Amino acid sequence: MYRTHTCGELRISDAGKQVTLSGWVQRVRDLGGMTFLDLRDRYGITQIVVNSDTQPVLSEQVRQLGREYVVQVSGTVTERASKNSKIPTGDIEIALDKLVVLNESALPPFTIEDDTDGGDELRMKYRYLDLRRGPLKRNLELRHRMSIEIRNYLNERGFLDVETPVLIKSTPEGARDFVVPSRVHPGQFYALPQSPQMFKQLLMVAGYDRYFQIVKCFRDEDLRADRQPEFTQVDCEMAFVERDDVLDTFEGLTKHIFKVIRGIEYNEPFPRLSYADAMSQYGSDKPDIRFGMKIKEITEVAKGKGFKVFDEAEYVGGFCAEGQAEMSRKELDNLTDFVKRPQIGGKGLIYVKYNADGTVKSSVDKFFDEAQLKGWAESLQARPGDLLLIMAGDKKQTLGALGDLRLEVAGRLGLRNKDVFAPLWVVDFPLLEWDEESQRFFAMHHPFTSPVKEDIELLNTNPGKVRANAYDLVINGVELGGGSIRIHDKALQQRMFEVLGFTDEQAQDQFGFLMNAFRFGAPPHGGIAFGFDRWTSLMAGLDSIRDVIAFPKNNAARDMMIDSPSPIDDKQLNELFIKLDVKE
Amino acid sequence: MYRTHTCGELRISDAGKQVTLSGWVQRVRDLGGMTFLDLRDRYGITQIVVNSDTQPVLSEQVRQLGREYVVQVSGTVTERASKNSKIPTGDIEIALDKLVVLNESALPPFTIEDDTDGGDELRMKYRYLDLRRGPLKRNLELRHRMSIEIRNYLNERGFLDVETPVLIKSTPEGARDFVVPSRVHPGQFYALPQSPQMFKQLLMVAGYDRYFQIVKCFRDEDLRADRQPEFTQVDCEMAFVERDDVLDTFEGLTKHIFKVIRGIEYNEPFPRLSYADAMSQYGSDKPDIRFGMKIKEITEVAKGKGFKVFDEAEYVGGFCAEGQAEMSRKELDNLTDFVKRPQIGGKGLIYVKYNADGTVKSSVDKFFDEAQLKGWAESLQARPGDLLLIMAGDKKQTLGALGDLRLEVAGRLGLRNKDVFAPLWVVDFPLLEWDEESQRFFAMHHPFTSPVKEDIELLNTNPGKVRANAYDLVINGVELGGGSIRIHDKALQQRMFEVLGFTDEQAQDQFGFLMNAFRFGAPPHGGIAFGFDRWTSLMAGLDSIRDVIAFPKNNAARDMMIDSPSPIDDKQLNELFIKLDVKE
Repeated sequence: MYRTHTCGELRISDAGKQVTLSGWVQRVRDLGGMTFLDLRDRYGITQIVVNSDTQPVLSEQVRQLGREYVVQVSGTVTERASKNSKIPTGDIEIALDKLVVLNESALPPFTIEDDTDGGDELRMKYRYLDLRRGPLKRNLELRHRMSIEIRNYLNERGFLDVETPVLIKSTPEGARDFVVPSRVHPGQFYALPQSPQMFKQLLMVAGYDRYFQIVKCFRDEDLRADRQPEFTQVDCEMAFVERDDVLDTFEGLTKHIFKVIRGIEYNEPFPRLSYADAMSQYGSDKPDIRFGMKIKEITEVAKGKGFKVFDEAEYVGGFCAEGQAEMSRKELDNLTDFVKRPQIGGKGLIYVKYNADGTVKSSVDKFFDEAQLKGWAESLQARPGDLLLIMAGDKKQTLGALGDLRLEVAGRLGLRNKDVFAPLWVVDFPLLEWDEESQRFFAMHHPFTSPVKEDIELLNTNPGKVRANAYDLVINGVELGGGSIRIHDKALQQRMFEVLGFTDEQAQDQFGFLMNAFRFGAPPHGGIAFGFDRWTSLMAGLDSIRDVIAFPKNNAARDMMIDSPSPIDDKQLNELFIKLDVKE
Repeated sequence: MYRTHTCGELRISDAGKQVTLSGWVQRVRDLGGMTFLDLRDRYGITQIVVNSDTQPVLSEQVRQLGREYVVQVSGTVTERASKNSKIPTGDIEIALDKLVVLNESALPPFTIEDDTDGGDELRMKYRYLDLRRGPLKRNLELRHRMSIEIRNYLNERGFLDVETPVLIKSTPEGARDFVVPSRVHPGQFYALPQSPQMFKQLLMVAGYDRYFQIVKCFRDEDLRADRQPEFTQVDCEMAFVERDDVLDTFEGLTKHIFKVIRGIEYNEPFPRLSYADAMSQYGSDKPDIRFGMKIKEITEVAKGKGFKVFDEAEYVGGFCAEGQAEMSRKELDNLTDFVKRPQIGGKGLIYVKYNADGTVKSSVDKFFDEAQLKGWAESLQARPGDLLLIMAGDKKQTLGALGDLRLEVAGRLGLRNKDVFAPLWVVDFPLLEWDEESQRFFAMHHPFTSPVKEDIELLNTNPGKVRANAYDLVINGVELGGGSIRIHDKALQQRMFEVLGFTDEQAQDQFGFLMNAFRFGAPPHGGIAFGFDRWTSLMAGLDSIRDVIAFPKNNAARDMMIDSPSPIDDKQLNELFIKLDVKE
C-alpha cells in the first residue's frame, strides 16, 4: 500500500494519526534545526518535518532529495507551530519516521510552480511536466467537472449520448478534411469529421428525439493562433422543436454551468439580438456586451458640412467613451494608429471631447461648430466629460473597424473583466453569403439550415435577404456555440441546393445519404454545437484554448512532445496504395 | 409547439386532457366503425382513434396516411374500451380532433418492427431506418446509460476525464495504424491511436493520479467477423497502486454496472484464476465459468496401455459432461467432426459413457478395461450417467481444442444462458511470447507491462517463464477488459527493451518521449481498459457488437450508408503531397 491519505487531505482533526503519503518533492529546506519537505500530489501539498539534531540520518536523507523525486513518507500528523493559512493542510505537518524513494528525477528543465520560468516551446515539449503545475491542473479539473455537469444535465432532460463515427467520408463543402487512406479499398479514403452534423440529423430521422455528444472534431484549416486541428464540441440535436425550444433548453444548460462552475446565478433570460442589430450597434456578430459604448450612426447630421471625409462616406458613426474627455493627445494618436492597422483597415479617427465644463473640442473643429458637435454628442448619448470616437467610410468596413476600436478602448479602460460574463443570443443571421470570386451564394452556416419561415418566399426573389433560422450563443465577445433549425422538407432542401448552385448530381454525390434519409419521414428538428475548449477556457478566465487541452498541438499543427506528424515506413505506404509526392 | 406530451407518457390519470402528440405512423387499421392509428416516437406508442361514422373526413385523412409518415395529432385522452396491458400507454387512447402531416415518407425497404424482414445489407444501408426499430433503440439507450453510470461512478472516486489526442504518431509495434497525411509537413503523417496507452501513462507522470476516458480507438487489422476498425474503450489509469488496488476498484465498477443495468448484485469477490490454471482447466485464457466441465489431465493413467494415440501424445485430458451418458452416436460423431475442423485442429475424440447402471462403454474398449475407464471417470469426477470426452496430442493444442469442445458442448446443452453472468479475473499472464519466425520475444501485452516482482530475476535467466503483473476481466468467455501494473523504473524498462531485442536507438525512436518522461519522477502506476462495445453488447445479451454501435462498418470496413471510404479529389491529394499507387 503506497499511501493511507493524499497530500491534500489531512487536517488538524487528524493530529496524532500514523499516516503514509506518496508524492513529489516540491522543495526541501533547513530552518532552525529542522528539515522541511513539501510533498505534492494532485490533491495538495503537505509539509513533512524532521528534527536535524535528533534524527540526523533521516534529515540527511531528506536533504539529499532532488526536486520532483517521487517519495513515500510515513510519520505522525502533528499540529504545526507556525500555521500556513494559505493551504488547506497548513495547520498540520507530518513528523517523519520513514522515507522511501520510489523514483528519482532528473532536474526539470523549468520550475514546477504556478509561475514557471519555462518558455512556450520548452513547456510544450515537456508537457507532462508543465501539466504538473497548479494552473494547468486546475484547468483540466475544471474541464472534467464541466463535462460531467453537461452530461448529467442533458441526461436528466432525456438527451441520449450517441457516438457517431470518426472514419467518415470527405465532402468538398466547408473547411478542409483530414483524410485516412484505406488499406482494404485501394485508392479510397475515409475523412475525419469536421462535426457530426449529418449523423446527428440522421439520428433525428431515426427518431432518437434528443441527442448529445462531447466529441472530437477535425479541421485541416490554415494555421492561426489559438486554433487546434482537433478540437472538442458539445454537439446536440432535438426533434419536434422550434427555435425557442432549442434556445430555452441550452440557455438552461449555460446557466447551470455558470452556477455550478462559477457560482453565478442568472435570473433573467439572456438578451436576444438580431444579426442586423449586432452589426449596427457593435460592429460584430459576436458583440461583447459587458459594457455599453454602443455604436450609433450619424451619417445624416455629419454630411454636407464641407468635410470631405464625411461627405464622401457611405456611413459615419461612432461611440461614446464615458468619462474619457481628458484622454491625452498621445493616447488618441495611439488609437488612430490602431484603427489604421491593416487588419482593422480604418483610414482615420475623429474625436470629439465633450468637456466636463460643457465645451467641446474636436479634431474637426475647422468644419463643424459647437452646436453641430453637441448634436453629435446628443445622438451618441454623451454627457459632459465623455469622449466621442467617430469613423467614416464604407458602411460594412467602418462598422467592423468601429467594433474593433470599441473592444480596444474597452480593454484599455479595463472594462473587459474576465470575472464578469455577459451572455446573449444573436439570431436571424443571413442565410446566404454572396461570393464575388465564384459568383455564387454560399451557405453561411451549412446547406441544411432552414430559412426563417416568413422569408422562404424571398429565396426566389432576393436570396441575399433571406434570414436563417440560426442562432449563436455569444459570451464576452466569444462565439461559444451556434446552431439552427434544419430544413426537414425535401422540396425546400432541393430549392436550397438550387440557390447554392448545386446540380442534382453534385447534391446527390455529396449529401445523397442525408437526402435519401429525408425521404423516409424526417421530423422537424434543430440543434446546436458548443466549442467545448472555448467554453472551458472562458469559464477558467483564460485567453487561450491551449491551456484547457491536455496535449495540444502548436501553431504548426505539430505535437512537440511526441514529435508528430512524422515520416512512416515504405511498407506502410505500400499497404495503403500511396506514394509520397514531395517536391524538393 | 409540436407536442404537449410524448407517445410514451400518457396514462389513465390523464383522461380528459386535451393533448398534442407528434411522431411516426406505425400502423393504421379499421375496426368496427373506428379508424385506429398507432403513433410512435422514441418513448413509446399511443393509440389514436377516430369514429369513421361521425368524423368521416378525419377518418379518411388517417386512412390515407402511409407507414412512417410524420404527423401531429391533437385530441382528448380517453379511457380505452379494450385495454392493452402490454404497453404502458395501453389503458388510454386519444380521441382525434385534428391531424397535421408534418412530413410524408416513401415506403421503407423493410418493416420497422422488432422482428424485421430486412436483410443485413439492406439494414446497414438504411441504418437510420433500422435504428427506428425497438431492439436497436433499446441497445443505444442502454449504451447511453452505461456511459453515464461509468462516468459518475469514476467521477465519485476521483477519476478525471482527460481527453487525449486523436492525431498522434505511428509506432510499428502492435496492430497496424490508420495514418493521416499532413498538409503542413510534407511527407509526414499522423496516426490514429490504437489506445491512449502512452498518454495515460504520461498523465500519471504528470501527477493526475486517477484518469479515465471513454474514447474511440482505431486498428487497421485484418478483417474478421464482429471486428470494427473504430471501437470504444473505457480507458483508466491510477498512480500509487498495486495490482489489487486496480482489481478492487474496477471490480467495484463492474458490480455497479451489473446492479444498475441488470439488477444483479454480487456479494462475493470475483474469482481470480492464474493464466496457467485457466489454460489447464479451461483450455482458454478467457474461460466461460457459467458451468463446470473443468478439463483434467489424465496423461499418467492413460499412457502405456498400448493405445498408440495416447502413448504418443504429450498430453491426454478431457472433461465430464454431466448426465450425458446417453448421448447418441450421431451426436458424438457430430462432436468428433467439430473437433476435426481446421480452426480447432483436433485429430479425434474419445468418449467414455459412464452409464447410469454403473457400466462403462467407450470408443477405446479394445485398449482399456472397465477398471481403467472407471479410474478416468474418477479423475474427471464423473458420476454414473455422465459422459467423458477425451482428447490427446500436443499439450497446448489439445488443451485449446478441449476448451473449444467444452464451449460447444455447453452451448448444445443450453448452459450458456445469456441472462447468467460469471465474471472472473485472469491474472499472472506470461510477460513474453517467443516468436519462432523472427527468433525474438514479443511483449504479450505491451513493452511497459511490469513483471511480477518475484520473477524480475528470471528476465536474465529464463525470460519465457516471467509472469506479467497483468490481468484480464473475463465474463462468460468474453475478455471484457485487461490491463497491468506498468514499469516505472528506468533500469527495468531498459532491461525489458533489451529482452525484446530493441536497440537503444529503436527504443528511443519509438518510445523516446515516454522514456524521457520517466526520467522526471514517474510514480508507480497501473491501469485497465475495457472494450465498451463488448461490455454493452454483453449487458444487452447480444452476440455482436454491431448492434450496440449507432453507425457501424461492415466486415470490409465499409460504411454502407454513407458509402465510405471513397475516392478523393486530385487537389486534395496534391495538397497532401501524396499520389495514388494502385496497381491494376
